[in-house]
Amino acid sequence: MTDTTQKGRILLALTGWSPDVWLDELGRAAPDRPVTLEPDGAADPSIHYAVVWKQRPALLSKLPNLKAIFSLGAGVDHVFNDPDLPQVPIVRVVSPDLTTRMSEYVAWQVLDHHRLGPRYRAQQAARIWHEDRSQKAAADITVGIMGLGELGRDAAAKLRVLGFQVSGWARTQKQLEGVTCYAGAEGLLPFLASADIFVVLLPLTPDTRNILDRSLFSRMTKRGPLGAPVLINAGRGGLQNEADILAALDEGLLSAVTLDVFQQEPLGPDSPFWSHPNVTITPHAAAASVPSSLIKPIVAQMDAHDRGGKLINLVDRKAGY
Amino acid sequence: MTDTTQKGRILLALTGWSPDVWLDELGRAAPDRPVTLEPDGAADPSIHYAVVWKQRPALLSKLPNLKAIFSLGAGVDHVFNDPDLPQVPIVRVVSPDLTTRMSEYVAWQVLDHHRLGPRYRAQQAARIWHEDRSQKAAADITVGIMGLGELGRDAAAKLRVLGFQVSGWARTQKQLEGVTCYAGAEGLLPFLASADIFVVLLPLTPDTRNILDRSLFSRMTKRGPLGAPVLINAGRGGLQNEADILAALDEGLLSAVTLDVFQQEPLGPDSPFWSHPNVTITPHAAAASVPSSLIKPIVAQMDAHDRGGKLINLVDRKAGY
Repeated sequence: MTDTTQKGRILLALTGWSPDVWLDELGRAAPDRPVTLEPDGAADPSIHYAVVWKQRPALLSKLPNLKAIFSLGAGVDHVFNDPDLPQVPIVRVVSPDLTTRMSEYVAWQVLDHHRLGPRYRAQQAARIWHEDRSQKAAADITVGIMGLGELGRDAAAKLRVLGFQVSGWARTQKQLEGVTCYAGAEGLLPFLASADIFVVLLPLTPDTRNILDRSLFSRMTKRGPLGAPVLINAGRGGLQNEADILAALDEGLLSAVTLDVFQQEPLGPDSPFWSHPNVTITPHAAAASVPSSLIKPIVAQMDAHDRGGKLINLVDRKAGY
Repeated sequence: MTDTTQKGRILLALTGWSPDVWLDELGRAAPDRPVTLEPDGAADPSIHYAVVWKQRPALLSKLPNLKAIFSLGAGVDHVFNDPDLPQVPIVRVVSPDLTTRMSEYVAWQVLDHHRLGPRYRAQQAARIWHEDRSQKAAADITVGIMGLGELGRDAAAKLRVLGFQVSGWARTQKQLEGVTCYAGAEGLLPFLASADIFVVLLPLTPDTRNILDRSLFSRMTKRGPLGAPVLINAGRGGLQNEADILAALDEGLLSAVTLDVFQQEPLGPDSPFWSHPNVTITPHAAAASVPSSLIKPIVAQMDAHDRGGKLINLVDRKAGY
């Protein structure tokens, strides 16, 4: 018989997601750890770990025996929206499944713009047979990746395999095989001048909020084979100034955008994005958090930590991601 | 001074393509080889090499000093349409540029079906925000590649990197890292039962003409996450029975198709393919023959052959490709 008292309970704290599948997976992966959706009072001593997606503010603040918080998303901005977040380690989800799905999405959308998907679909609708003989090869195109964490690095490697030139930008200097890396404020301008298609996989922090604005777009100086740069945001809606994106499209600073994320989700039915001819929308579907692939590594970390081991994939609280 | 007489002339024999850019590239790559669009009579002794795209039948048959024929396409069925083809070596174009472009196209279309591109575009048009939470990962999908030449092998490797399972079928048994390979008539049924998305990169020969027919589709037995298999033909239109494709879509034997090639090109404006909701059409644009990347290796082979070297990428006349 396992000593469940010693192992403590898991608090599953979700907003906007149905808990059922997560409860099922936790039950399967940690049969010896009881799971609850609500603590027994603000100071419930039985809660040892919290597994969260947009937890309710202050929910975790007074739990005396909370050892760590596990985020169910690769981004952790939703965790930091809680002003009373307790001083315990925060663990981001890193799952090969999530990473691979995001790279699928990035490759798909980069190729769709590079290979003139919108134009050929419009031609099909008009029954027009016309090959664009000026089609460039991937080697003629540079994809600039903003954010070089797990997701950005995997996407960069796969875009390289497909033949694209790749540049990248991150807060701190990275070294990636075959990728021209830029860092920090001083690296931003040369980065923006380096690429034809920009893929945004940045964490949402006070430093990056609204970073995708007119001044940024106006510094994307490469006009390249597509006429103007393409923007693909698969990070967070809070990174983007949406009025500026629409204006940049209309002014020709951007030729096209793909947005998987928005300031407000779901995107309201009146948004001008839906019907803009140069906008591709997906409903925050780039890389689903799939319970079966995420819960096992989380429980494995709880077990390791209980045995005195170190937590991995920790969030840097100061950097905010 | 180069002895141009000794080197002989190049006959550039094109149907349906403008010769101008090819003349320019040949002029640049082989300044010491005069190029002509017409021989001086059927038995012109000055022609040493022919560079062809759908050459006029019998044009080459009586040239006494013709040493080799260079095809400007990866497929060579257009060369064999000539019943009076002389018995000289035929060289297929193999260019990293062409191969990479084809793999871009294959990855693009495989991802567009796998990631539910048509459905999300329809939802956008209807202003519907709905994530399909049953989205599979690439690892849950097997892509079956018909034809494992240069193009098929490169596409297989890149699909593997993107996370897909890959199987392949060819006339003769191949060994490819990480790819389940089937061969010949006895391998066809297990191959057809192995995959969710089929990519056709076969050569067009008497054996493969009309191979994509109802009996083939009815043996694609994997219903998988997409409901029914997907067919992507980037090979030749002659491989496909077009009435059978339409019927298979309507019967649910196929869930969707992407066709870059057709029995008749350009596709006529009355074709039912244009407006079928489960058909994606591109205008034979998968992998353009780009003069600048094709002509240099062709001229390099002429030079090597004139020095007594061996021609590479030779066509097997018996196999027809």
